[in-house]
Amino acid sequence: MNIAVFGTGMVGQSIAAKLEQTGHSVSFGTRDVLKTLNRTEKDRTGKSFTEWYEPFKSTIRVLSFADAASQAELIFNCTSGEGSLDALRDAGKENLKGKVLLDVANPLKFSKGSPPFLDPCNTDSLAESLQRSFSELRVVKTLNTMNALLMVNPTLVPGDHNVFLSGNDPAAKLSAVAVLKSFGWKESNIIDLGDITTARGTEQLLPIWLRLWGKLQTPMFNFQIVVAPPQMR
Amino acid sequence: MNIAVFGTGMVGQSIAAKLEQTGHSVSFGTRDVLKTLNRTEKDRTGKSFTEWYEPFKSTIRVLSFADAASQAELIFNCTSGEGSLDALRDAGKENLKGKVLLDVANPLKFSKGSPPFLDPCNTDSLAESLQRSFSELRVVKTLNTMNALLMVNPTLVPGDHNVFLSGNDPAAKLSAVAVLKSFGWKESNIIDLGDITTARGTEQLLPIWLRLWGKLQTPMFNFQIVVAPPQMR
Repeated sequence: MNIAVFGTGMVGQSIAAKLEQTGHSVSFGTRDVLKTLNRTEKDRTGKSFTEWYEPFKSTIRVLSFADAASQAELIFNCTSGEGSLDALRDAGKENLKGKVLLDVANPLKFSKGSPPFLDPCNTDSLAESLQRSFSELRVVKTLNTMNALLMVNPTLVPGDHNVFLSGNDPAAKLSAVAVLKSFGWKESNIIDLGDITTARGTEQLLPIWLRLWGKLQTPMFNFQIVVAPPQMR
Repeated sequence: MNIAVFGTGMVGQSIAAKLEQTGHSVSFGTRDVLKTLNRTEKDRTGKSFTEWYEPFKSTIRVLSFADAASQAELIFNCTSGEGSLDALRDAGKENLKGKVLLDVANPLKFSKGSPPFLDPCNTDSLAESLQRSFSELRVVKTLNTMNALLMVNPTLVPGDHNVFLSGNDPAAKLSAVAVLKSFGWKESNIIDLGDITTARGTEQLLPIWLRLWGKLQTPMFNFQIVVAPPQMR
């Protein structure tokens, strides 16, 4: 499948590499192609984009948001929450029409220092704001509740744990499930919460996720929803 | 121990009954004692307070917030989030001084219909607002992330799953841990997230909790934090 990955940070890199390894035709979408290709500052992994990109030069293209979107059947939004709407505007409505957007971003704001806060939050969500602004895009919120490495390799945390889906379009959710399964997610661990407004719930997992990261001293953890058996409900 | 339970709804009833069964001296704190004792409208359990209270008449007292607080060493806040600050004001600063408050309430507002939203939220929490308003009270947020029956009987959901603590006072947290263990919680399943600001994280679990309740068609579930073993971090 032709897939565009919007955003070239750690989440975008993790998703793009996995998609490439599983046989998809992958393009990054980015605001400034030349700037991205020359980005030498190191991120938290200790690698710059340039270093990370070296082994993928011949297989993953770096394109503008519009070029990446126009060729894609499915788009991953791995931009920062603050940059997501602008990225979609750059991509252009005509290039987004009818496409599935898997929205992995969280609307974290650091303007008041750390811990960050969510904006939008509570009575709205980033996923809803994207869906509202691009009504012909089929937005599915997913994977935003965990570390980037875990998104594409769920067995890094042993046993059962969950990934959530929120979205209005049943067929788009089926596409999301197919991608998640190709990443290694068991179908029984994928929880479809309901329509796009349920993304408020998963975006609001970020505050406790960040505190747990501090507490556990590792981002390699996930939420499991444990349910009582029928006779104990 | 002398324990006051503020709030006479399902959460207060569940907590008070368990405390009574485990040998504590328990008083309800309520705004209007006579009104509470004569409350015959049924709640979601199909029972009215009057019916529920019948077997506890000789062991659990129903008092004003002030009377219940003055005699208590520890207080459970099981009022509605909207009523919590007023309940503590009614109790009176002098009756709260130095005491441990286990805050189980969530600041859910239904004024825009269902699903409810949180107020405060994101850059503040109910637990913080209580701690700020009553600086000599030692607030520990806990148990607010699950169904009332599960709070006092964690084995209703089999296996491991978690309860969280947030608070500024280490000794108050030890009291909270002792109470949680008496309710049946394994110490290894109690996660101390840090200071009282971490209550933002657990209060913000409510939106996804409510959606999961709808999805799973039962409130008998809980969150388990699953962590990668050291060699996989």
